[in-house]
Amino acid sequence: MRTGVWLVGARGSVATTSVIGALALRAGLTAPTGCVTELPELRGPALPGLADLVFGGHDVVATPLTKRAEALAAAGVLPGRLADAVAPELADVEAALRPAPTEGTPADRIAAVVDDLTTFRRRHGLDRVVVVNVAATEPAPAPHPAHHDLPALRDALAGPVDVLPPSSRYAYAAFTAGCPYVDFTPSTGARLPALAALADEHGLPYAGHDGKTGETLLKSVLAPMFAMRHLAVRSWSGTNLLGGGDGATLAEPAANAAKVGSKQRVLAETLGYLPQGSTRIDYVEELGDFKTAWDLVTFAGFLGTGMRMEFTWHGCDSALAAPLVLDLARLTAAAHAAGRRGPLTELAFFFKDPLGATGHALGDQWAVLRDFVAGLHGGAPR
Amino acid sequence: MRTGVWLVGARGSVATTSVIGALALRAGLTAPTGCVTELPELRGPALPGLADLVFGGHDVVATPLTKRAEALAAAGVLPGRLADAVAPELADVEAALRPAPTEGTPADRIAAVVDDLTTFRRRHGLDRVVVVNVAATEPAPAPHPAHHDLPALRDALAGPVDVLPPSSRYAYAAFTAGCPYVDFTPSTGARLPALAALADEHGLPYAGHDGKTGETLLKSVLAPMFAMRHLAVRSWSGTNLLGGGDGATLAEPAANAAKVGSKQRVLAETLGYLPQGSTRIDYVEELGDFKTAWDLVTFAGFLGTGMRMEFTWHGCDSALAAPLVLDLARLTAAAHAAGRRGPLTELAFFFKDPLGATGHALGDQWAVLRDFVAGLHGGAPR
Amino acid sequence: MRTGVWLVGARGSVATTSVIGALALRAGLTAPTGCVTELPELRGPALPGLADLVFGGHDVVATPLTKRAEALAAAGVLPGRLADAVAPELADVEAALRPAPTEGTPADRIAAVVDDLTTFRRRHGLDRVVVVNVAATEPAPAPHPAHHDLPALRDALAGPVDVLPPSSRYAYAAFTAGCPYVDFTPSTGARLPALAALADEHGLPYAGHDGKTGETLLKSVLAPMFAMRHLAVRSWSGTNLLGGGDGATLAEPAANAAKVGSKQRVLAETLGYLPQGSTRIDYVEELGDFKTAWDLVTFAGFLGTGMRMEFTWHGCDSALAAPLVLDLARLTAAAHAAGRRGPLTELAFFFKDPLGATGHALGDQWAVLRDFVAGLHGGAPR
Amino acid sequence: MRTGVWLVGARGSVATTSVIGALALRAGLTAPTGCVTELPELRGPALPGLADLVFGGHDVVATPLTKRAEALAAAGVLPGRLADAVAPELADVEAALRPAPTEGTPADRIAAVVDDLTTFRRRHGLDRVVVVNVAATEPAPAPHPAHHDLPALRDALAGPVDVLPPSSRYAYAAFTAGCPYVDFTPSTGARLPALAALADEHGLPYAGHDGKTGETLLKSVLAPMFAMRHLAVRSWSGTNLLGGGDGATLAEPAANAAKVGSKQRVLAETLGYLPQGSTRIDYVEELGDFKTAWDLVTFAGFLGTGMRMEFTWHGCDSALAAPLVLDLARLTAAAHAAGRRGPLTELAFFFKDPLGATGHALGDQWAVLRDFVAGLHGGAPR
Repeated sequence: MRTGVWLVGARGSVATTSVIGALALRAGLTAPTGCVTELPELRGPALPGLADLVFGGHDVVATPLTKRAEALAAAGVLPGRLADAVAPELADVEAALRPAPTEGTPADRIAAVVDDLTTFRRRHGLDRVVVVNVAATEPAPAPHPAHHDLPALRDALAGPVDVLPPSSRYAYAAFTAGCPYVDFTPSTGARLPALAALADEHGLPYAGHDGKTGETLLKSVLAPMFAMRHLAVRSWSGTNLLGGGDGATLAEPAANAAKVGSKQRVLAETLGYLPQGSTRIDYVEELGDFKTAWDLVTFAGFLGTGMRMEFTWHGCDSALAAPLVLDLARLTAAAHAAGRRGPLTELAFFFKDPLGATGHALGDQWAVLRDFVAGLHGGAPR
Repeated sequence: MRTGVWLVGARGSVATTSVIGALALRAGLTAPTGCVTELPELRGPALPGLADLVFGGHDVVATPLTKRAEALAAAGVLPGRLADAVAPELADVEAALRPAPTEGTPADRIAAVVDDLTTFRRRHGLDRVVVVNVAATEPAPAPHPAHHDLPALRDALAGPVDVLPPSSRYAYAAFTAGCPYVDFTPSTGARLPALAALADEHGLPYAGHDGKTGETLLKSVLAPMFAMRHLAVRSWSGTNLLGGGDGATLAEPAANAAKVGSKQRVLAETLGYLPQGSTRIDYVEELGDFKTAWDLVTFAGFLGTGMRMEFTWHGCDSALAAPLVLDLARLTAAAHAAGRRGPLTELAFFFKDPLGATGHALGDQWAVLRDFVAGLHGGAPR
Repeated sequence: MRTGVWLVGARGSVATTSVIGALALRAGLTAPTGCVTELPELRGPALPGLADLVFGGHDVVATPLTKRAEALAAAGVLPGRLADAVAPELADVEAALRPAPTEGTPADRIAAVVDDLTTFRRRHGLDRVVVVNVAATEPAPAPHPAHHDLPALRDALAGPVDVLPPSSRYAYAAFTAGCPYVDFTPSTGARLPALAALADEHGLPYAGHDGKTGETLLKSVLAPMFAMRHLAVRSWSGTNLLGGGDGATLAEPAANAAKVGSKQRVLAETLGYLPQGSTRIDYVEELGDFKTAWDLVTFAGFLGTGMRMEFTWHGCDSALAAPLVLDLARLTAAAHAAGRRGPLTELAFFFKDPLGATGHALGDQWAVLRDFVAGLHGGAPR
Repeated sequence: MRTGVWLVGARGSVATTSVIGALALRAGLTAPTGCVTELPELRGPALPGLADLVFGGHDVVATPLTKRAEALAAAGVLPGRLADAVAPELADVEAALRPAPTEGTPADRIAAVVDDLTTFRRRHGLDRVVVVNVAATEPAPAPHPAHHDLPALRDALAGPVDVLPPSSRYAYAAFTAGCPYVDFTPSTGARLPALAALADEHGLPYAGHDGKTGETLLKSVLAPMFAMRHLAVRSWSGTNLLGGGDGATLAEPAANAAKVGSKQRVLAETLGYLPQGSTRIDYVEELGDFKTAWDLVTFAGFLGTGMRMEFTWHGCDSALAAPLVLDLARLTAAAHAAGRRGPLTELAFFFKDPLGATGHALGDQWAVLRDFVAGLHGGAPR
């Protein structure tokens, strides 16, 4: 099952780490640490093998992958000489990357993406291509009536004004080209009724939003712990310090608001009430690809006794996100092959703000994922 | 269903907080924060109501409950005037407490406990009495052949030498008196083949060991998180600073060893390998009933990238343990009423070192508990 | 040397804690923990004794001191029955409090304050009265030409428009009444050229700004440590979570900006460069009178090796500020008695944003303070 | 002023980092971050320049410096290609290293060291050689009468039994060869009356003990802060997790005891009382050359209100220690050139457990150091 993985934001840190990591795994140069689909509980015949993945993608910048890889190695994200060890394969991926189209009406740019996708699929003889958005976080777009109506959206796109943010244009193009779409960012992506209708028209599955890689991952196990123990969380305050490209983007108030919203949702939905406190994102360039999150939780136990916990998470976003990008591409491809269409709510395990209403507790999400994958593998749900 | 709760270590901080808390809940003076059996998912007719609980117990010290309550209020564990508000009911409990027997052979002391238990049951017209050990942690006893053979144990107990530690004598007495037994401490309790045989002879259930209230509770959600995400935990080091009576006890190397052992087990069993690092317990008198745990976890993600998390847990052991003591008494009583015998492995949710082999992941333990309680309530497992 | 201490914001948490603490110290009910002037290095004959202090003050609210004391006791700031133990003396202070004047032109309100101050001094036969501002933090006022020119300011105050914020009106009134003035807050207070001229006209000393009680106190020892060791601080990010009245005030963006500015200055001035990162203040009501600050410092050592430190400070603002208020009143009174006039730069030890240019390193500030006090005591500087 | 720096433990991480760092500084490849003697306050003509330092040393192992450098680069301590950039100069140092003598009586081995030192001095035309001990920490030796009496020590050394630990044999050899001696470790070194007599006989200065690079450095600014603010420290508990060679050594109980003792001294001596709590050292191999220390400080403010601070220090021991080794060599050489003899108490700034009784507050130590260096430079003390 030859599977294309088309990365939107293909020259960024996450995409570059995904690509080099997949090449290194294929070459037996590294272990699949961080790859959920390589766990014994999920591994199996329905998923495309790592050797079956073919990478391509769009980006608005032109930095060569080797250059980005050097920066990632200097920052401690990639082992020093890993990119060299997979240089020929990396050159093939470089050749498959395309500049993001910038000319003409929105419809023209979408058509150009559709063309790139179909050419990529045909040239590499792929069974299917999964489009994965790993580009920088966008601000939420202004509401527009065409977001709710596919014919109206078609009309609007032919005009000169952009009613869709880039992530949604890519979703539109993916569906038009017959490709499943995954949004790893908090951007709008396929989250518009008109795009859901388009996916439905083409019988395609899609997944999102916002990969759960750090503070929210911890919230999704700690908040259920407090709930299961009937402890009353009084406040939950979080500070996220991050450098890297995403840090600079998220320092923009509009993008920040989008991100922070999806970060707090897990608390209200898991606990059944919203504790005091808020989540902050601050840009500290010097932290590079690493991120430090600090959270303070104050809570009451029996007879109202006040207690507290703090945690510090010092993670490398690219190293946490990249293997999940591979997981999502493989799982979405397998779902597509199995005839699934519409939102893949069973993939909530991977997301801060998952499509559908499946709850945010990681343990529950894991059980749902395990059953889903078992179904794909043709076995009875365990 | 009038249910006796017989507390071994009845004048200690945990027991006193349990008793006053239950009285305050019954009087509508506080909310059931921390009481797992008061969650909507578990509440139901099969469990004895809080108003049905009658408290008694043994202790080696004679400090009045009101005196202990004052100390707990000064330490911020109990609200200032709560003990006053339930003074008459507390006096009834005081009247039901008995000094721990200290005279004669082990068999004589066991007989005295049996006598106290049957008198308590008869005098208060109780359907059953659950014995809960909340006394100070003991060192592990020297191995003895009689531990493995009930007739040999009977013979040995009639002699002058103590082959059983106190927690096990209480388990022996409980079973002899027809009472289920719960061990909330890491002590030996019912964990000897000869005592399992005795429980079986009397058709009684039992539960343990070592209430999961702090650092290990966190491990039981964080370790599964690392496992589910296929992240490789390289080291996990823990420091526990605790004051209070238990702190002084645990500073003794032998008791410390018992406790630390049950604290590390969760990692090896959840991750499938034992990371580097160890867990320390240190006594810092000034922390009083509060405990501060600090853990450092170093782990590797994709391509071996090193990351780390730390947490600090500042909890009040009595306020965390006391509601669980009530939960365990109610659940064990309901299991007994339903005819259950042998180890209650479904209560693993509550313990650091649970009886049976049910895994340490809190989410899984919760699912098992929920199904078990649903069964008790007569509904189909959810 | 009978010394009046006139508190602006006299019914707030800091003022109430100062007053009750002074009364309790005088009665021998507590130890002078936190009182710098009770250290052997500073104690001596030139400072008014605690028994010589007489309290009065203004407030815009009318909550009785006993009521505030109850709230502080419930929050764990005051020992339970301390206010009761000094009830008669506290009633005397209550009787000496005056409502903040609200009628008429700014000049009228200033005149009313002058009248209150002179009446207080006369009625209690005081040698002098030190006015200390412990009211809520104000936003920075709009610049006005009259701030730079005393005659122009006099004219402006007679008009209907308020060209001075309240803290500066109190400074104006204090100087007019012949009283030294201390600003414990980051508000404007005496920090205007026209007010400096007024103080000079009356030959009065003044001190400020912004009591150094938590995160900045730590910065003032840690930043010099990095500097003395020639370590290069790359980023210093701080989060302050605080409840209480001050928390709500500081959540206002304007007040927040004033406070954050004085918090970062210490870094730039001590290190000689401004590291990346910023300081945040967030309001979390549930934290009450306690404050949690978390700081992350990343730094480079030899050959550029990256390292990091974090700290969490969990302090009670009132308990940290109140003894310093007493210290400042005593020191300022002694300076006035010794004929000092103008800004008391030797008191930089107490302030986040000290008057004058004496550096922010706590150790240096301490040496200056010690010499200053030795001078007051008439001994040679040690 | 050509100055030899003879490193005992010359192939270890600290020594290798010192040597490569000095060569890189000399070549203009790096900035003098972490070098205290390169601060404007201390720089000056009396100190030998970095270009004047010539390195040699002993070690019990034979790992080439280039090999050690590779390991340090892999661990993130040295920039990737720094060792290559100074390869010729590093080869010269390699050629100047000698195996630690292991044959014969203690006196024979000392004589061999003396011979190595004098040969090194002569061959390189050095004005003087400073011996610096950076070998692994030793257990404290058994007391012996000869430690107190130089003639008795001379006799004992001629016998077959080792009455001196290695660090003291090196001190003996250094003094005999006319070389000043610095102990950067907590080992015994020159801290024996008989060795003080020997240094005196030769008119030599010496310095130590135990470089202050992490947790204790923080204690030496935080403990004075609590003292200056009259805050009562109730407990101070520390956990040190360290990998690397030193971690394994310090996990040995005897070495651990030596280290922990010097770590707690700063508290008792600075605060005037010893708070509760203790300091732990644990070996966690995976941390490599990095060390994580976590400290919890509980303290009381005004009216006994309980508060707390925590800090985590994540430092690279080699990167912190190496520049101080260069500082100490330069300062001790200058002191020797200036005719100083006996213990250099003015260098307390650098040590956890400084010779002499100069106090542990970093700010005070800094002032003493600054004056001392000003004196060396021939200026009046500033």
